[in-house]
Amino acid sequence: MQKHSTRSLDSIIQAIHPPHNEWRRKAEARTAQLVMPPRALGRLHAIPEKICAIQQTLNPDVSSKTILIMAGDHGIMQEGYSPFPQAVTPEMIKTFLRGGAGINALASSVQAEVRVVDLGIVPDLDPNELEGGDHLTIAKIGRGTANFARGPAMSREQAAQAVCSGFDRAEAHIHQGTKLLGPGDMGIGNTSPSAAIGTVITQTPLETMVGRGTGVDDSALAQKVKAIQKGLEINRPDPRDGLDVLAKVGGFEIGGIAGLILAGAAHGVPVVLDGFIATAGALIAQSLCPVSRDYLFAGHCSAEQGHRAMLDFLRLEPILDLEMRLGEGTGAALAMAVIEAGVTMFEQVQTFAEAGIPGA
Amino acid sequence: MQKHSTRSLDSIIQAIHPPHNEWRRKAEARTAQLVMPPRALGRLHAIPEKICAIQQTLNPDVSSKTILIMAGDHGIMQEGYSPFPQAVTPEMIKTFLRGGAGINALASSVQAEVRVVDLGIVPDLDPNELEGGDHLTIAKIGRGTANFARGPAMSREQAAQAVCSGFDRAEAHIHQGTKLLGPGDMGIGNTSPSAAIGTVITQTPLETMVGRGTGVDDSALAQKVKAIQKGLEINRPDPRDGLDVLAKVGGFEIGGIAGLILAGAAHGVPVVLDGFIATAGALIAQSLCPVSRDYLFAGHCSAEQGHRAMLDFLRLEPILDLEMRLGEGTGAALAMAVIEAGVTMFEQVQTFAEAGIPGA
Repeated sequence: MQKHSTRSLDSIIQAIHPPHNEWRRKAEARTAQLVMPPRALGRLHAIPEKICAIQQTLNPDVSSKTILIMAGDHGIMQEGYSPFPQAVTPEMIKTFLRGGAGINALASSVQAEVRVVDLGIVPDLDPNELEGGDHLTIAKIGRGTANFARGPAMSREQAAQAVCSGFDRAEAHIHQGTKLLGPGDMGIGNTSPSAAIGTVITQTPLETMVGRGTGVDDSALAQKVKAIQKGLEINRPDPRDGLDVLAKVGGFEIGGIAGLILAGAAHGVPVVLDGFIATAGALIAQSLCPVSRDYLFAGHCSAEQGHRAMLDFLRLEPILDLEMRLGEGTGAALAMAVIEAGVTMFEQVQTFAEAGIPGA
Repeated sequence: MQKHSTRSLDSIIQAIHPPHNEWRRKAEARTAQLVMPPRALGRLHAIPEKICAIQQTLNPDVSSKTILIMAGDHGIMQEGYSPFPQAVTPEMIKTFLRGGAGINALASSVQAEVRVVDLGIVPDLDPNELEGGDHLTIAKIGRGTANFARGPAMSREQAAQAVCSGFDRAEAHIHQGTKLLGPGDMGIGNTSPSAAIGTVITQTPLETMVGRGTGVDDSALAQKVKAIQKGLEINRPDPRDGLDVLAKVGGFEIGGIAGLILAGAAHGVPVVLDGFIATAGALIAQSLCPVSRDYLFAGHCSAEQGHRAMLDFLRLEPILDLEMRLGEGTGAALAMAVIEAGVTMFEQVQTFAEAGIPGA
């Protein structure tokens, strides 16, 4: 079950091109004919139009949806400020496989399948011994990252491997017919590397970017800021080099999410971001390949305080804003309901001519 | 097909009681046990909890959904500032019945049925002669309201009749099994009475409340403000008397929406508001029966500029904010997807105990 990529990151990136604006214009022309005042459904119109540009069609298709949860553990947990122990990471993976977590319920409500990739959690899970284990892929790059408050989280080679592994897993689902991808994340402690990535790439002050994650108190929050600050001082990640940032602070699952986004961009499959961790992955992807941003929807704006600054940097307006902060892909799954409704609207509403009504 | 209520509005209102807070507390206790950090799905948790309080259960049910479009015409169209002619009202009703409008597409995406009630459009439609005509109920109170810029839109008796007719139609659907109701609206010109209702009941300045509706230009917008201002000066609606406000400015469909809300409140069926017109109906319902507000979800915040002030007055936070301004019930239908996902989440997510994971 151990799966590693044989492709080079450079060859992946070179194969990615921008979406097709001529198809967006054709889609906008269809919207203008729908039997309603001009663009009366506001931002809902832009959703199918963007998918038309990505899929090169006037018949956008999001019927087959996958939430691909990338999992990894984090050495920074040694700093001791997280309220949840690291052992929760594998337990939550088992819950995903059993179908009992938040993401399973929200994915089922949009008929999305949920799959899990172990890119580097500490323990070894055996898919053959787990209920639902056939939905788990082992693609371990390490047993958790190193503590980035004391040195680099991983090597540059491991960072590239994480991105390529995420690419490969997402590509496999695309080859199986997935038309809409959402990255999920699992990794106790992963708001810390995400905040570090957000600060380095968006140049937002660390105090703005660091939030309470799963629920740290004031004292732990101060510890968290201090540890991340130390990590940035020791590692000096290069803001112009996404792979360096990923290697310096982690994590494996964030690299996997960046790879998933590159796979969507390479194969014309729109990607619906979840919250803070997924968007940190998008910042890495955008640093590696700026055009990858044009394949993204921002599923929601997280309650994690730095998320808005990340979305602003990517110039993405979130579809939902419900103060969610769970991760797992839950915001992506919920937004897929709105995306699919937008596509249905684009395809099913009659034109003024078909309805026999003169336009305004 | 002509259907008029035999019930008195007073007897309807007297039968309405507040939702059951003990069920909300039980639901909150279940939420606290779900395998995620405390209330990590933010405002999504409050949705099933509110439905539990309304339905008196820990198994909230929104499986059967109806969008009930109330239609009426408006005498204020004589003032001449609307870009769409009044003849569009019946044509759009025919489009709803044929299944070709925005609301049909968005309702189909949440498996909601769409039904139409003629509470007072100008022409006579014959359901027997129309494609899909079995989904149209004729409950005409008049052939359009009178021009409220020159006198009352209707009599107090007609206003009560509009509310009772809306109640009856919604109640009929509830008796057939509807568990979640969304009011739609159709009536060219109906942002004008809605703005008048909003100004009178929320005491917001008219200039803040009046927007561009289906798309008036600057000069027509000034005409619109002036006509509504004149109507308020001539009619002097009593802000403490919702029935007086409705009678003075109209319209029949807004009264019908108020009645639909009262039916939801009377029978423990949550109601998902759409935009500006539906929320004007909610202001009338709340004036008649303040507790009716506790049965409402705000489906979305409309791009029509006065809507936010109406929602603030009702202390409702919108589920979606996508700059939509179509009406027809489209915002309600789209929000039903989020509501249903919230219910699925509440019912399907395991507890920490079930997942075998210690809580935070």
